[in-house]
Amino acid sequence: MQEENVNISDEFENQKHWIQFADQKQEFNKRPTKIGRRSLSRSISQSSTDSYSSAASYTDSSDDETSPRDKQQKNSKGNSDFCVKNIKQAEFGRREIEIAEQEMPALMALRKRAQGEKPLSGAKIVGCTHITAQTAVLIETLGALGAQCRWAACNIYSTLNEVAAALAESGFPVFSWKGESEDDFWWCIDRCVNVEGWQPNMILDDGGDLTHWIYKKYPNMFKKIKGIVEESVTGVHRLYQLSKAGKLCVPAMNVNDSVTKQKFDNLYCCRESILDGLKRTTDMMFGGKQVVVCGYGEVGKGCCAALKAMGSIVYVTEIDPICALQACMDGFRLVKLNEVIRQVDIIITCTGNKNVVTREHLDRMKNGCIVCNMGHSNTEIDVASLRTPELTWERVRSQVDHVIWPDGKRVVLLAEGRLLNLSCSTVPTFVLSITATTQALALIELYNAPEGRYKQDVYLLPKKMDEYVASLHLPTFDAHLTELSDEQAKYLGLNKNGPFKPNYYRY
Amino acid sequence: MQEENVNISDEFENQKHWIQFADQKQEFNKRPTKIGRRSLSRSISQSSTDSYSSAASYTDSSDDETSPRDKQQKNSKGNSDFCVKNIKQAEFGRREIEIAEQEMPALMALRKRAQGEKPLSGAKIVGCTHITAQTAVLIETLGALGAQCRWAACNIYSTLNEVAAALAESGFPVFSWKGESEDDFWWCIDRCVNVEGWQPNMILDDGGDLTHWIYKKYPNMFKKIKGIVEESVTGVHRLYQLSKAGKLCVPAMNVNDSVTKQKFDNLYCCRESILDGLKRTTDMMFGGKQVVVCGYGEVGKGCCAALKAMGSIVYVTEIDPICALQACMDGFRLVKLNEVIRQVDIIITCTGNKNVVTREHLDRMKNGCIVCNMGHSNTEIDVASLRTPELTWERVRSQVDHVIWPDGKRVVLLAEGRLLNLSCSTVPTFVLSITATTQALALIELYNAPEGRYKQDVYLLPKKMDEYVASLHLPTFDAHLTELSDEQAKYLGLNKNGPFKPNYYRY
Amino acid sequence: MQEENVNISDEFENQKHWIQFADQKQEFNKRPTKIGRRSLSRSISQSSTDSYSSAASYTDSSDDETSPRDKQQKNSKGNSDFCVKNIKQAEFGRREIEIAEQEMPALMALRKRAQGEKPLSGAKIVGCTHITAQTAVLIETLGALGAQCRWAACNIYSTLNEVAAALAESGFPVFSWKGESEDDFWWCIDRCVNVEGWQPNMILDDGGDLTHWIYKKYPNMFKKIKGIVEESVTGVHRLYQLSKAGKLCVPAMNVNDSVTKQKFDNLYCCRESILDGLKRTTDMMFGGKQVVVCGYGEVGKGCCAALKAMGSIVYVTEIDPICALQACMDGFRLVKLNEVIRQVDIIITCTGNKNVVTREHLDRMKNGCIVCNMGHSNTEIDVASLRTPELTWERVRSQVDHVIWPDGKRVVLLAEGRLLNLSCSTVPTFVLSITATTQALALIELYNAPEGRYKQDVYLLPKKMDEYVASLHLPTFDAHLTELSDEQAKYLGLNKNGPFKPNYYRY
Amino acid sequence: MQEENVNISDEFENQKHWIQFADQKQEFNKRPTKIGRRSLSRSISQSSTDSYSSAASYTDSSDDETSPRDKQQKNSKGNSDFCVKNIKQAEFGRREIEIAEQEMPALMALRKRAQGEKPLSGAKIVGCTHITAQTAVLIETLGALGAQCRWAACNIYSTLNEVAAALAESGFPVFSWKGESEDDFWWCIDRCVNVEGWQPNMILDDGGDLTHWIYKKYPNMFKKIKGIVEESVTGVHRLYQLSKAGKLCVPAMNVNDSVTKQKFDNLYCCRESILDGLKRTTDMMFGGKQVVVCGYGEVGKGCCAALKAMGSIVYVTEIDPICALQACMDGFRLVKLNEVIRQVDIIITCTGNKNVVTREHLDRMKNGCIVCNMGHSNTEIDVASLRTPELTWERVRSQVDHVIWPDGKRVVLLAEGRLLNLSCSTVPTFVLSITATTQALALIELYNAPEGRYKQDVYLLPKKMDEYVASLHLPTFDAHLTELSDEQAKYLGLNKNGPFKPNYYRY
Repeated sequence: MQEENVNISDEFENQKHWIQFADQKQEFNKRPTKIGRRSLSRSISQSSTDSYSSAASYTDSSDDETSPRDKQQKNSKGNSDFCVKNIKQAEFGRREIEIAEQEMPALMALRKRAQGEKPLSGAKIVGCTHITAQTAVLIETLGALGAQCRWAACNIYSTLNEVAAALAESGFPVFSWKGESEDDFWWCIDRCVNVEGWQPNMILDDGGDLTHWIYKKYPNMFKKIKGIVEESVTGVHRLYQLSKAGKLCVPAMNVNDSVTKQKFDNLYCCRESILDGLKRTTDMMFGGKQVVVCGYGEVGKGCCAALKAMGSIVYVTEIDPICALQACMDGFRLVKLNEVIRQVDIIITCTGNKNVVTREHLDRMKNGCIVCNMGHSNTEIDVASLRTPELTWERVRSQVDHVIWPDGKRVVLLAEGRLLNLSCSTVPTFVLSITATTQALALIELYNAPEGRYKQDVYLLPKKMDEYVASLHLPTFDAHLTELSDEQAKYLGLNKNGPFKPNYYRY
Repeated sequence: MQEENVNISDEFENQKHWIQFADQKQEFNKRPTKIGRRSLSRSISQSSTDSYSSAASYTDSSDDETSPRDKQQKNSKGNSDFCVKNIKQAEFGRREIEIAEQEMPALMALRKRAQGEKPLSGAKIVGCTHITAQTAVLIETLGALGAQCRWAACNIYSTLNEVAAALAESGFPVFSWKGESEDDFWWCIDRCVNVEGWQPNMILDDGGDLTHWIYKKYPNMFKKIKGIVEESVTGVHRLYQLSKAGKLCVPAMNVNDSVTKQKFDNLYCCRESILDGLKRTTDMMFGGKQVVVCGYGEVGKGCCAALKAMGSIVYVTEIDPICALQACMDGFRLVKLNEVIRQVDIIITCTGNKNVVTREHLDRMKNGCIVCNMGHSNTEIDVASLRTPELTWERVRSQVDHVIWPDGKRVVLLAEGRLLNLSCSTVPTFVLSITATTQALALIELYNAPEGRYKQDVYLLPKKMDEYVASLHLPTFDAHLTELSDEQAKYLGLNKNGPFKPNYYRY
Repeated sequence: MQEENVNISDEFENQKHWIQFADQKQEFNKRPTKIGRRSLSRSISQSSTDSYSSAASYTDSSDDETSPRDKQQKNSKGNSDFCVKNIKQAEFGRREIEIAEQEMPALMALRKRAQGEKPLSGAKIVGCTHITAQTAVLIETLGALGAQCRWAACNIYSTLNEVAAALAESGFPVFSWKGESEDDFWWCIDRCVNVEGWQPNMILDDGGDLTHWIYKKYPNMFKKIKGIVEESVTGVHRLYQLSKAGKLCVPAMNVNDSVTKQKFDNLYCCRESILDGLKRTTDMMFGGKQVVVCGYGEVGKGCCAALKAMGSIVYVTEIDPICALQACMDGFRLVKLNEVIRQVDIIITCTGNKNVVTREHLDRMKNGCIVCNMGHSNTEIDVASLRTPELTWERVRSQVDHVIWPDGKRVVLLAEGRLLNLSCSTVPTFVLSITATTQALALIELYNAPEGRYKQDVYLLPKKMDEYVASLHLPTFDAHLTELSDEQAKYLGLNKNGPFKPNYYRY
Repeated sequence: MQEENVNISDEFENQKHWIQFADQKQEFNKRPTKIGRRSLSRSISQSSTDSYSSAASYTDSSDDETSPRDKQQKNSKGNSDFCVKNIKQAEFGRREIEIAEQEMPALMALRKRAQGEKPLSGAKIVGCTHITAQTAVLIETLGALGAQCRWAACNIYSTLNEVAAALAESGFPVFSWKGESEDDFWWCIDRCVNVEGWQPNMILDDGGDLTHWIYKKYPNMFKKIKGIVEESVTGVHRLYQLSKAGKLCVPAMNVNDSVTKQKFDNLYCCRESILDGLKRTTDMMFGGKQVVVCGYGEVGKGCCAALKAMGSIVYVTEIDPICALQACMDGFRLVKLNEVIRQVDIIITCTGNKNVVTREHLDRMKNGCIVCNMGHSNTEIDVASLRTPELTWERVRSQVDHVIWPDGKRVVLLAEGRLLNLSCSTVPTFVLSITATTQALALIELYNAPEGRYKQDVYLLPKKMDEYVASLHLPTFDAHLTELSDEQAKYLGLNKNGPFKPNYYRY
């Protein structure tokens, strides 16, 4: 959960007893205090949250100003248990879903297997995520696996109306549209949960709002709920808080930190999106440019590798000596930002920290310097410090501002310091496929786990399932895995089907 | 502990006499189980063990056939508490040590700090490691930090006589020479431990032989011993066995698995040594060659990256789908060995597994195919299967055999399937510096830890010290670490001095 | 000159009326012969020609349907010697020009030098190029160097109206707008040339249409013309034809084939634009994808390097064994297209050849395969063969067609087989800066050359000026050139100021 | 021809009229003055010349002190028309030749073709090259193609005695041994030329000494000689001198500058040998090291690419702005040597220039800095300036000197400033195969050319044959060339069999 969405959900944390719930509106602008752990990984939830910008490109919100809540709509089968912008957009949405299916081989493989066994038979899943074509593939897969699903959006902007319409047309009770009000937001969630004659037994959440709503309004529902699957940094953080406080009353699965998902969300995705985001916004040439990348975690490693390969000269800043030494061994000069601030053409933050780029740095940058953020939330660049009278802001393109100093110097600020890769690039379907598959397997695991395997605590996805997520994506690359012989498995002391590595293994 | 050394220690394990303390024996024989763990990382101990081959280049064992045990030698100060090949070689050894000092900046930095505080003041360290110039820098650093040391070799071949002489000349009681007999080996260890009026309170071991000897002969010594620092895979395994069996009677530090050490031993070191080892043995050209790398762990990743950069076409085999997916994303075709066996020019094993390359594979290779091992021990290539009458072996250079099939086909086998990087390349001093610093800090930590911090168990080096090892090596690269501001540390929920990452973080 | 533009000019060639001067006609029709030469390099003219698509993004051609020829417009100084869409758009255009100036350091450096000397003083330049912000920087630089200029567009679509307005506002007689008719096109050119009391003495052409017009209509003008500078492949070809036919009556400079320009147009530009073009159209992920690149010239080398760096597995096809061997040494498997056609995810043509990808290939591709062209013109993929009844075309995005086979297989065709980098990416200003600087220096050279240095022939830019173009761009990278000492220059037998390499040197 | 050998042959140039010949002995130490053109490429002749160091490793010059000239030797067939060190070493030499054959596929392919046609039937070739296993494969191939050959060495040190013996055993009249005196050198050449009843009609030379000898002693022989093939920079330079002076009386082929050979000698070979040379001499680690590479021609490009890939931080110096701009676009900071001299760990010269690294630079280097030369001859580093009393030289290994400043600073000088790749690495057989094939084809071309195709001038190898050299090496990589269709060839205006590129094409 990220960015805009942070405003919606994270305020809870700032309240002493969020489970007691109260009117949070006035708190919307508060920042969460405990970002520390979070900064270690970027949830794809961030991605989905913001990807509305690019996805929006094919959404025509057009002229229709009537609130979906005030509309009477039925799908072609006469069903009206949904609330979307315009059921007539279903056909367009269906094509988008079909295109997405082609790049989500793992879910399709699960569907195929589901022809035989239906591991989610009897499952009643209530979900709250971004509503995109990729999510639709997930939801329909869960359906194929035997589950009944009801769905709301986890972000007021991120719904693709056409996709929501397509899901509704196919009979999925979906309650979401692009541009919900806050009141709409909670109304939609409530419509998913508060149904006569139907009660969820599984929760799939992205940001924790759905979980929160049930905690607050329908705590008794947890008696029938077998587990929560949560994929966002923020949502996971809340669950750990609940757990610490002894208030978590069902098992929860933290799918944000599974190995496969992490690698794709951060290293592999950012390696490509840093180039894409910079190109789409500035049309700049990478060759010969001097770049400083702040932070050498997975995101920073991806950014550095890509820019180096394109002929940029890359400097790195780090606070952690182990990551710093890795940067050295990978061929990057490790500097303090101040040492290179006057000479670099591009500054990229990937730290999860705040105020990494300060007004003082911005004052010293050279004319034309590009500043952008690939890290966590929008705190890394002190954008607020640029809102002073002596500086002029000029919006030169969508997501591109020139901030102009009195002497004429321009600093090029991308996405106002929000995440470049989400605001100015897109998250490839393949990456979302990894996430969705991880979610599906977590649901299956929790739903089918024998009594007692999971207690009222937060769990990581078992390594074997993490490996399974990976293996389901290998056919995309026509990749052929080697199998251990009995003799080898014995020699290594391993089960032939995995898991193949101990938990502490570093990939 | 590795390779030849494995032969030494493991052989002992299989011999009745040496493990008199009964039930331990059958523990030690459970090899298959333990190898699983081992295969996950390669100890630098492997490196030091075998590096005698290259180091030997400047050792002139010459004509002197008298056993050092039969010699009466004194150093220039009249001291005779040592046993080395020839004390007169001290000067040559001293120069080697001085050269090594220049590439071991971290230890030199520790010495500098030791001018003020002497964290090992009062420590009486008995050590058993390879005796090389780099070890000498470590030993003399421990001395500078306040410790008294006595030292033996952990490998009968790996002592550099000149270095041992230099240490003896400087007043360190060293008992070791190149080419010890097995009896000599234990005699030397005993001379370190069994001293009148001196009793060790710290153990630095590489392979576990010293620890074993004390267990067996002087178990009472453990009353005064504050801890064991062990760096080899095998030694660490033994300690875990002891711990499981409830027989570990002091805290032990597993320095093999610290993050920094692991990265250097495997990824960074092998990235360079694969090229070096192949060049020195075969003078081949890498450009355009087709290579298959078996295993995509850290060693495999290093090999693949290096060869790809040199213009080779690289295929990868893997059993673990997570590593396999990484190979795909890094641009390598994932295949089964059989698919490419007929077409590749080079086969490199990095699995930790056994019989990865079988006789059947070898039969199908094309003429001139090069086969070598970068992984664990010498089990990966089934070399034994080549010892059949119809095949002719031809030694064409040191470490290079042509195995010739009846039809004239030649397979080029390097180092008889032992570790290429140790047999045919060298371990850079910088890598050994990382290890030695890790050892020194582990000794300091264990020696100074307040009562109760460590129990009778095996511990990993605290992350903060791991970070400290890294930070001590940054000046080599003129690398400048960024410090957190108070505000940032608070935001991240971190101490400004680290540790900066949770234990589960994957670097 | 390229693509659409090719259609414009080449169409004319095939029409009776425009080449009245007889025998020239059949020369121009000898296309097959001439394409051979063309395929060896891609002129930036191609780029500028097609870049209107992206540039158009900020052009609002809006509602005004009146032809500029029918409008009465004056700039703020009362001048009306121009014909643009709307003089009031000047301000917007000026900002675009200013932004471009920042990335065209070399021209700005020439302007600075021009404060002292005016090497084009007295020059009367008539120009016919794309009218973009970058061209405007060139035109205004020529003005600053002392020249009088009149300008028309070389492509009926490529004019940025706002930029044309800004030039007109600044007093440059510009005759061009986006969406000219063919008649408009020639009318504009004529207005540049056919002026009372003003006669050009230099020609700057891009595609040869201006040159052709003067040849046809005002052949006497050549008496006063000191030379022609031509940058397009097509235009250069025409000049060589004229030269061979003995009809070239002034010196001409082929700036298309200068070393610096070539490297940027092809290798450096395509290394970045292949990624950009693929991302913007398909949002695909590069990691792990199998790609075949047809052709390993500079364009192919750029594409291969970029994709390899992003983790793709790249195959190459080639007809030239020297380039093929280079592909091998760079780590790419050299295959015939048929060998990999069933397995690849992406096919990229960079050959300059025709029908490299045939219908037969297209029939065998796997579902979802992406096909695009980075080479010369739109002949490389046999797109026409896809216009058959059994195949369905579906336009899924701008520049993206799904061609659907009866069995449901989709092939993703980008830009209908036209140049991906021009249609779906942008040409960085820096690349255009190289071209514009080369043009400016060629004009200066021809204008100032002493009598007799250049005869009525086609010349390459002197290497020394080529080096000068490069040196003017070094400050962008804060790059510091080393100067030869007198002793070194003597040793090498070189002039200290260059040229530094013989003509046959391969960069 | 290079280095030591330069001493032998280049003195001629320093004499006004070398064709008049005189006693040059006293001139042996003079350096050539006109290195200018040469510096543009490094002849493999350099390589072969110096590779005696590594090759020597298996040569046992042993005890036998008798001069071969004084020995009476016969091969097993009773033939005594040769003069080698020891005919009994033939067997060992034969194995070396057989191993080399396996990596010289192109020559073996020519032999195969020769079973049908013998294009050198009737050719009487006198050759003067390094006598190595690779040369032996060439000589025996020429034999198989129909030629009679007589051979001498072009370098007094570079003969592999075993190989010479093997050739003699096979019936080739070889006159050469390792460690010839200068008198021996010319005696051997004379024995090749001055034969009763046999007169050469083709010359294959490496360095020009053989050519010179015939010019001086047997000028009449040129009447029957159809041509000279010369591969060294120096030899080629001499031929151009002769040609300019109007004294070249037969056609000559400059095979040094063919495209394929150049790429391999410089870019591909050095990309690997820079790593190899540094490792073998210093065992250093590349990761994180700061390196400055002087010169960004093909050699510099190879060095930079390799070190960047290994994780070094690389700076470049250049005098030519075009190459400088390429360095920028490839991601290297372009600096003057002085800017980085205090911080770099390694300095590599690849310029062809002299005194690129001066005493002043050496004075400013940091302790432990490594200095080496990959460029042309041994002039790039001003080694002579280090021979001053205040500096101490310490030879720490073969080819490695520590030069020690009064304050203890050590600079590590490799190979005393001679070519690192030849002194401390080896030239892969594959590279030598390219050269040998080029030589063979040049001989065939000159020998079979119709009257009048070649005049008394110096020619480059026709591009078509250059392409043929490349194509003969493709099978090594299992590389499959695509063939043009008739339609495509017509479209491109090309012959289907090549040549495929115009002469000015830059690969």
